[in-house]
Amino acid sequence: MSTPSLLILPGDGIGPEVMQQVRRIIDWYGDKRGLKFEVSEDLVGGCAYDKHGTPLHDDTMAKAQEVDAVLLGAVGGPQYDTLDFSLKPERGLLRLRKEMDLYANLRPAQCFDALADFSSLKTDVVSGLDIMIVRELTSGVYFGEPRGVIKEGNERVGINTQRYTESEIARVARSAFELARKRGNKLCSMEKANVMESGVLWRDVVTEVHQAEYPDVELSHMYADAGAMQLTRWPKQFDVIVTDNLFGDLLSDLAAMLTGSLGMLPSASLGAPMENGRPKALYEPVHGSAPDIAGQGKANPIACILSFAMALRYSFDQGAEADRLEKAVEKVLADGVRTADLLQAEGAKPASTSEAGDAVLAAL
Amino acid sequence: MSTPSLLILPGDGIGPEVMQQVRRIIDWYGDKRGLKFEVSEDLVGGCAYDKHGTPLHDDTMAKAQEVDAVLLGAVGGPQYDTLDFSLKPERGLLRLRKEMDLYANLRPAQCFDALADFSSLKTDVVSGLDIMIVRELTSGVYFGEPRGVIKEGNERVGINTQRYTESEIARVARSAFELARKRGNKLCSMEKANVMESGVLWRDVVTEVHQAEYPDVELSHMYADAGAMQLTRWPKQFDVIVTDNLFGDLLSDLAAMLTGSLGMLPSASLGAPMENGRPKALYEPVHGSAPDIAGQGKANPIACILSFAMALRYSFDQGAEADRLEKAVEKVLADGVRTADLLQAEGAKPASTSEAGDAVLAAL
Ligand SMILES: CC(C)[C@H](C(=O)O)[C@@H](O)C(=O)O
Ligand SMILES: CC(C)[C@H](C(=O)O)[C@@H](O)C(=O)O
Repeated sequence: MSTPSLLILPGDGIGPEVMQQVRRIIDWYGDKRGLKFEVSEDLVGGCAYDKHGTPLHDDTMAKAQEVDAVLLGAVGGPQYDTLDFSLKPERGLLRLRKEMDLYANLRPAQCFDALADFSSLKTDVVSGLDIMIVRELTSGVYFGEPRGVIKEGNERVGINTQRYTESEIARVARSAFELARKRGNKLCSMEKANVMESGVLWRDVVTEVHQAEYPDVELSHMYADAGAMQLTRWPKQFDVIVTDNLFGDLLSDLAAMLTGSLGMLPSASLGAPMENGRPKALYEPVHGSAPDIAGQGKANPIACILSFAMALRYSFDQGAEADRLEKAVEKVLADGVRTADLLQAEGAKPASTSEAGDAVLAAL
Repeated sequence: MSTPSLLILPGDGIGPEVMQQVRRIIDWYGDKRGLKFEVSEDLVGGCAYDKHGTPLHDDTMAKAQEVDAVLLGAVGGPQYDTLDFSLKPERGLLRLRKEMDLYANLRPAQCFDALADFSSLKTDVVSGLDIMIVRELTSGVYFGEPRGVIKEGNERVGINTQRYTESEIARVARSAFELARKRGNKLCSMEKANVMESGVLWRDVVTEVHQAEYPDVELSHMYADAGAMQLTRWPKQFDVIVTDNLFGDLLSDLAAMLTGSLGMLPSASLGAPMENGRPKALYEPVHGSAPDIAGQGKANPIACILSFAMALRYSFDQGAEADRLEKAVEKVLADGVRTADLLQAEGAKPASTSEAGDAVLAAL
């Protein structure tokens, strides 16, 4: 097999500095484990707008379609807030998701033992927590038409459309059932079938896929509002959760926050398999661009490093190497290395972004 | 002024038994405080469907339009799950909200000192918590057209429409600014303006209302996913939150769960003032119909009792009497009276629904 290719899109804010640490990890795998990648780099988000007048240049889009996996840092910043909707940094990310057809967004919410105290939840509620949220990522109200702000009489009216086809629901349900089989064999599907017809269809299709293809997996359904409650009350009741794009946006962020360490959480966005058998894939940390601390060497690079671990597992079939990297991160945390976002004691000296990178490399 | 009128709709599940305790409180106010109400009772939800084949009879709807305030218990139950969408118990509640035009749903999330330990969150994160979520209740994706499950080719497609007019946003924003002025003078508005045009309009209109009418209130904006995170991380940063119907559904349930005591939380749904100056109003507990414990005398009546306290305050201008009732509830909790939902110690004997009612009456 030819050398696998990686497109790196550091993006805005803390994106570039956390990605710099990931590049060191990638180099380490090439030097020490004989796992070489062909790495290229390009722009997305506000920095792409600054250079090209668009948050994602067509050439970058074309490159993303060709590589084996994309690694993204973060997009956005206050200087872009007044830009027209179609030019906002987020549109670059959304275009990547849509055109690469990355329909299954995997967001693990895992509580690291060393950090359980850091959660706003009681330690016994979150210690050992390990759930996986599968969020539909290419449809729903994020992309449905008609949309826009129109004029009716002398009033403005804001419109968006939630729209799901049967096959869109079925394919992400399959991704979730497959994951459940590899984990605790339990899937909970969340929607608002009590008030939204798109939720009724969601529930029906998930149930049909279950009966026809995954009867061995334990399936339950929950309204999304009850889901938000139950995630807060006792998150360990869940194993895998599958939900739509918008509910998934809120619920996965909520689940992430339960762990107390947003700077730790990676995500994978997967599409259908390409000719070489690998899924189209984009990996990114769950945290945002954190413009307030950008460029100061304070950012936590671990979420981005763990996103690369997910790439090793889901794109490159290197589960053992992914385990190795995840173990290294756990060791670093157990050793007490803490970037500023993870500091509790007043006066304790935080590790810088590159010191955290150093520690992970040393642990590897 | 003539005797104020109350329509009581106990609904399904635990609705009737918690409402029974509220009736005792209403009687107490008539006997002991000279606050008489003309009370009538009717059906909503599954029980209305059982009797009339519809979750809300037109006559009940007409009565609700005439009275000074409606008190509702809860709707829904598993035996109605297979009913057609248009006949589900929830449709009765949604019709009341829509036809009475109850656009501002006030959901206080308050943590009672005596119950802070009961939260899944750390005590210092929630003790003393007192926030108010104002949820738009008559528009958005709950009511937007087109909607339904249609056939396209040989695929089913589920569709719902998020739709907000400028005036719908402005009026609920005003309700929230007014409340903020009476509280901590701080309002946070939540939407997804980064991905939804209806959110862009929401943000614009809230900002315009702020500048034109409430420049003295401190206003901030937050994306709803970040809002879910921040509510989990440090809820005390908020005073009043205003958001749309669907985000409000999830975020207010999340906020409710932070307090650890869903059985304690009331809500008010308010519309425009009627001829007599009172707003159209419906009061209901935040908890659902809890079919699993219905009819066993286990349910916590306090959320429903506090909903009546909100009625005293917002419909009948009896702020002092509302305070009295809320104080009585606090005393009961401080005295250690606990229904089954609030029991922590194994072997402790829970108070029944009517014993909890007894205790509140005694404290009054
Ligand atoms: C940045 C934004 C467009 C994005 C989303 O809403 O999907 C983010 O919140 C996420 O969850 O990845
Ligand atoms: C019962 C249901 C229709 C309702 C809603 O979704 O609004 C409930 O969850 C609520 O929050 O009052």
